[in-house]
Amino acid sequence: MESGESRMQETRKVDPDKLRRLVAEILRVEGVPIEDAKIVADSLVEADLTNVQSHGVTRIAMYSDSIEKGGTDPKAEIRIICDFPAGAVIDAQKALGIVAGYKAMKLAIEKARQVGVAMVNVRNSNHCGAVGYYTKMAAQEGMLGIACSNAPASMAPWGSRVKYMGTNPFSIGTPTGQEPMVLDMATSVVARGKILLAEKKGTPIPSGWAIDEEGQPTTNPSAALKGCVLPFAGPKGSGISMMIDVISGILSGATYGSHIHNPFSHPEETMETGHSFLAVDIAHFRPYEEFCNDVGQMISEIKSLDRAKGVEEIFVPGEVERRNRTIHTEKGLTLPVAVCQELKCYADRYGIAFDLDFQE
Amino acid sequence: MESGESRMQETRKVDPDKLRRLVAEILRVEGVPIEDAKIVADSLVEADLTNVQSHGVTRIAMYSDSIEKGGTDPKAEIRIICDFPAGAVIDAQKALGIVAGYKAMKLAIEKARQVGVAMVNVRNSNHCGAVGYYTKMAAQEGMLGIACSNAPASMAPWGSRVKYMGTNPFSIGTPTGQEPMVLDMATSVVARGKILLAEKKGTPIPSGWAIDEEGQPTTNPSAALKGCVLPFAGPKGSGISMMIDVISGILSGATYGSHIHNPFSHPEETMETGHSFLAVDIAHFRPYEEFCNDVGQMISEIKSLDRAKGVEEIFVPGEVERRNRTIHTEKGLTLPVAVCQELKCYADRYGIAFDLDFQE
Repeated sequence: MESGESRMQETRKVDPDKLRRLVAEILRVEGVPIEDAKIVADSLVEADLTNVQSHGVTRIAMYSDSIEKGGTDPKAEIRIICDFPAGAVIDAQKALGIVAGYKAMKLAIEKARQVGVAMVNVRNSNHCGAVGYYTKMAAQEGMLGIACSNAPASMAPWGSRVKYMGTNPFSIGTPTGQEPMVLDMATSVVARGKILLAEKKGTPIPSGWAIDEEGQPTTNPSAALKGCVLPFAGPKGSGISMMIDVISGILSGATYGSHIHNPFSHPEETMETGHSFLAVDIAHFRPYEEFCNDVGQMISEIKSLDRAKGVEEIFVPGEVERRNRTIHTEKGLTLPVAVCQELKCYADRYGIAFDLDFQE
Repeated sequence: MESGESRMQETRKVDPDKLRRLVAEILRVEGVPIEDAKIVADSLVEADLTNVQSHGVTRIAMYSDSIEKGGTDPKAEIRIICDFPAGAVIDAQKALGIVAGYKAMKLAIEKARQVGVAMVNVRNSNHCGAVGYYTKMAAQEGMLGIACSNAPASMAPWGSRVKYMGTNPFSIGTPTGQEPMVLDMATSVVARGKILLAEKKGTPIPSGWAIDEEGQPTTNPSAALKGCVLPFAGPKGSGISMMIDVISGILSGATYGSHIHNPFSHPEETMETGHSFLAVDIAHFRPYEEFCNDVGQMISEIKSLDRAKGVEEIFVPGEVERRNRTIHTEKGLTLPVAVCQELKCYADRYGIAFDLDFQE
């Protein structure tokens, strides 16, 4: 564990564009069409750029394993199984979840442009990465976006002590006239990915994040992964998570709750997650400029409120992540050495040149 | 305060149907068309039946005051100011918020029946009561419903110590094949209405609910009402609340944040709240029966999970409220005597016969 810890705490600066190309190339060699591979690479590198490493390129190992063992079909072509003016249901046909999610949100945006609002749901899918990626897509097209997904059981519903629900994340994104404002959160106290990362790093997790198999609080990430993550805000978060499972899983005709396959223990199975993507075309509701002016005004009012004791700056949703992105884009992306080494293994195995060096 | 306390703690059993008729009659005398008055009465009595007294008939005083002082136009006819296949924006024209909300959700349901999904937003409105009322309407029509509203400033955004956002509630409701499952929550630790009720009752509030004007924690409901309610789950709840303001307020072209008028201090002003109502017609996505079977299955799986220590039963969203409703319908609705006396004052003033007696 100690060497794992030092390798995870040791970091290096990498070039985000080189990283995107490397990740896309790994997936291409694994059979993913290059256009799809680029989508996945972009989603993962964007997560790392914003410092949400739990949804970053560290996920390549899981995706590759699932492709190799058969849970993910790298060449899957999504199929629209029902189509109506304000929405659709897509069968991902075991695709990489990010590829299915991207195509679903694209379709929701197109439809919302026509009729004002559209919701596209996905079944028969896998892990769809950071859900904020999709709502940012909508925001960049002048739309409000809402995205959510279910996930393998890792969380105990309020009142229970066994895992049943996933960390079922959701995101709401809005244009602001400048950079989109994106709220992206798991319905657990923390994203399970952060516990995975702590396990890789060999560092303890804060108490209150999870319980072990016996239902006891734990700070050991491995014990937490065998046990349960807790819902955020007790019954409120638990209720939200359950409703996300209904909207993203059951409404899509995907599976739900503890029936979702875990890609770590069962890479040979398609996860059978469901996702839901809502796009709301602002211009159908009111002039786009007026909307952006109001959002911009609200943000500036909130940021200039009197601060609580000890607070240096008030942040709006996604602002810290945007700031991280700027720093990482300009000064190089900080990645744990262990993650770089993981990628190097794939590069070596597939005969891909490995160069992530960042030039200031 | 002591006599207020005893009157609020003293309760009586009333007949829900008689209560509905009385409340509708009070509003009718105040100028509200009887059909609209019945909608408001139903929403308020439903809240009391489910034991959410903060959004029950105790609100009549506030609504009446606003009608009397001019903030609410009892005869307002809502106006559709933009209309498209998957949604609309409605100008409430200073109507009672519940009347505007009801008509907006009705329209969203009609549109969703046609195109699959629809979102109807409302501007220039007042207090819209319990948002769960609207998502239950959708669920009873075989649709998923999402509703949210902004509200007068009472909550400090995360990192700040002054009130800017409202308790901005939201609800998600779904059919289950049996009774709808409805999640209904404020984005504050508690609904402001519960603090109002504690003030009426003269009872302290738990610490952690609110801070006073100086930014210090308080258990005094009056001090809390002058200070700030806190967002639930810290930055997560704060972010959700802000996004609800964007969706319900700014997208509607209503006002937002601290610009919303408080109906207690300024009953002469229209609150200028905004609301948003989304209806998703399940049958467009997958066969309705299959959907209900899956939701029913999920609920029964969750309810039969191993329970945490000390937990007697696992509840799904809205289940406790549904159970309260059954008891109150069968055995009479328990109302604080103070609330009954408030209604009697209106009845006496308007020459309405006052009889709420419940016959077992």
